Amino acid sequence: MAAQQAEVAVATSHRQVLLKTRPDGVPKASDFEIVTVPVDPLPKGSLLVRNRWLSVDPAMKLWLGPPGAYMAPTPIGAVVPSYAAGEVIASDHPDFDVGDRLVGRFGWQEIVAVDPETIYWKVSYDDLPLSQSLGVIGMNGIAAFVGVNDICKPKSGETFVVSTAAGAVGSAAGQIAKLMGARVVGITGGPEKCRQCIEDFGFDAAVDYKSSEPLLDALKTACPNGIDSYLDLTGGSISDAVRHLITVGARIALCGTAAVPSWNPWPLGERVERHLLNKQALMQGYITSFQRHRWPDALQHLETWARDGGLVGREDILDGIDKAPGSIARLLNGENQGKLVIKL
Amino acid sequence: MAAQQAEVAVATSHRQVLLKTRPDGVPKASDFEIVTVPVDPLPKGSLLVRNRWLSVDPAMKLWLGPPGAYMAPTPIGAVVPSYAAGEVIASDHPDFDVGDRLVGRFGWQEIVAVDPETIYWKVSYDDLPLSQSLGVIGMNGIAAFVGVNDICKPKSGETFVVSTAAGAVGSAAGQIAKLMGARVVGITGGPEKCRQCIEDFGFDAAVDYKSSEPLLDALKTACPNGIDSYLDLTGGSISDAVRHLITVGARIALCGTAAVPSWNPWPLGERVERHLLNKQALMQGYITSFQRHRWPDALQHLETWARDGGLVGREDILDGIDKAPGSIARLLNGENQGKLVIKL
Repeated sequence: MAAQQAEVAVATSHRQVLLKTRPDGVPKASDFEIVTVPVDPLPKGSLLVRNRWLSVDPAMKLWLGPPGAYMAPTPIGAVVPSYAAGEVIASDHPDFDVGDRLVGRFGWQEIVAVDPETIYWKVSYDDLPLSQSLGVIGMNGIAAFVGVNDICKPKSGETFVVSTAAGAVGSAAGQIAKLMGARVVGITGGPEKCRQCIEDFGFDAAVDYKSSEPLLDALKTACPNGIDSYLDLTGGSISDAVRHLITVGARIALCGTAAVPSWNPWPLGERVERHLLNKQALMQGYITSFQRHRWPDALQHLETWARDGGLVGREDILDGIDKAPGSIARLLNGENQGKLVIKL
Repeated sequence: MAAQQAEVAVATSHRQVLLKTRPDGVPKASDFEIVTVPVDPLPKGSLLVRNRWLSVDPAMKLWLGPPGAYMAPTPIGAVVPSYAAGEVIASDHPDFDVGDRLVGRFGWQEIVAVDPETIYWKVSYDDLPLSQSLGVIGMNGIAAFVGVNDICKPKSGETFVVSTAAGAVGSAAGQIAKLMGARVVGITGGPEKCRQCIEDFGFDAAVDYKSSEPLLDALKTACPNGIDSYLDLTGGSISDAVRHLITVGARIALCGTAAVPSWNPWPLGERVERHLLNKQALMQGYITSFQRHRWPDALQHLETWARDGGLVGREDILDGIDKAPGSIARLLNGENQGKLVIKL
């Protein structure tokens, strides 16, 4: 078949964000550089996608190195890997038409040649904002769904706790646990994020880990019947406190370690063995991008809930690719208000 | 119905081991006292059981306090709680006859009045030693079966690791994992116990945690393809090392914390979150005495395997109730050679 082309001419050059230096701790703006490069010609059997939204996620700190995480770190000089949502502007593949909206790991760049095999999914709806395909109806929502539905399995009346509760995954997780009938308690930093948990996301209680009250005491007050399940997005001393309150048969899903600044040297914390043993409890880690077999079911639920209003996503929108280099630090320092995305 | 009585007259007095002082760390002989007391009359609807074998188990350290474990500690002055196997010498219950052999939590005493509701099970075989009903065909074997079969789920060709590998639970677990097709590596202390793992129990390799070689290095050599599942009976630095070698999708069953001397103050160790997350791995604790719904299936398998010779239990037999007070220290100091039981 003849390759389709968008009616508007495809640009001849576009911008990319490259990794300039290996980050030491939180990636900072100066670790990146923005370059203007020619647009690749459409490869045979492939697509050209114009990114409309770039995602900013905590996991990017791991992807950018140092080595030791679950995947090889991004090489210096490479385009920064990231989730993105974009529109097909040229297609040489029968399953994709110009104008199709796609989600994938398209990276921090304006235009990208995409092998159809690597696409995450096609966005079928047009009654909800495309940016949500990176948030509550995207990898963040899937992360929340897998953690809550597949591992935490909250039962009606049980207490479910989530850390980084006002964040993109945490806020979705709390809402999903509410939909499943649980009493939901969020752990977050500062009174404004606590307010969001309760007023914007409908949690039953929120605990401020930055408050002067010891976290364990605050959790005891917020969870008088103990903690039946916990979606752990922080690790560290926050999770140490949570484990003291788990009930018999508790389930802990591990999805992130935002509260642990470095794993080299390997950090110490309170031993978990006796907690899990005494309570016959379970702790299980998962990586959303490797749970691909769960994406379709998750997306179907998330889209339905988002349309019905049972699941809302707050967004923090940065305007233009120039904002990308500083965005990870903004996220990891907790300065964002909701899912951080970059509008192109 | 008229109560049955054994043909030999029931003794009028018997001996009990009482908890005299709350142990500080490993329970020592002087924490106990042996008293001679009258035999209780047969209560209505109940049984009198003459214990033949008393069990000595690591969990007894927890049962004897200090408080904070999964059950209230034994009161000072009470009979020491323990598993035991005995014979009915008087019955006022239609389901039990004089001569029936029973396993239960009968405690460190010679004769005990037993409420039939509290009995663990009736021993149906007589071609295998009764003492094994406290070992490989008893709670130790069940602990191994639940940990291996229900949580570790070793697949053919996978590497399974167990700590306290020469002990009663560990040696049974390794043999069960072998029967399920796994490559089995035991962690134990000293060359003699390593020899037992390989020669007596048929493990593929054994690692001596007391050797001068760093444990992580020795484990890497013994497990060149990583560790797919681990039955953790020690916790502590042994388990910290194991977690560095787990594979994607690994399963860790937590059954004991023999390497952690005290949980007050709560001890520190290497954080587990990033291990479990990177490897999408699972850690799950269980308490055999609370897994009652799994006992019948476990016992059926264990009895078959013991009879077929696929599962052997080494026993360390102490003679007489006078040996009971010092037996827990013997066990926790690793001086025993196999399942420690007291013959009455």
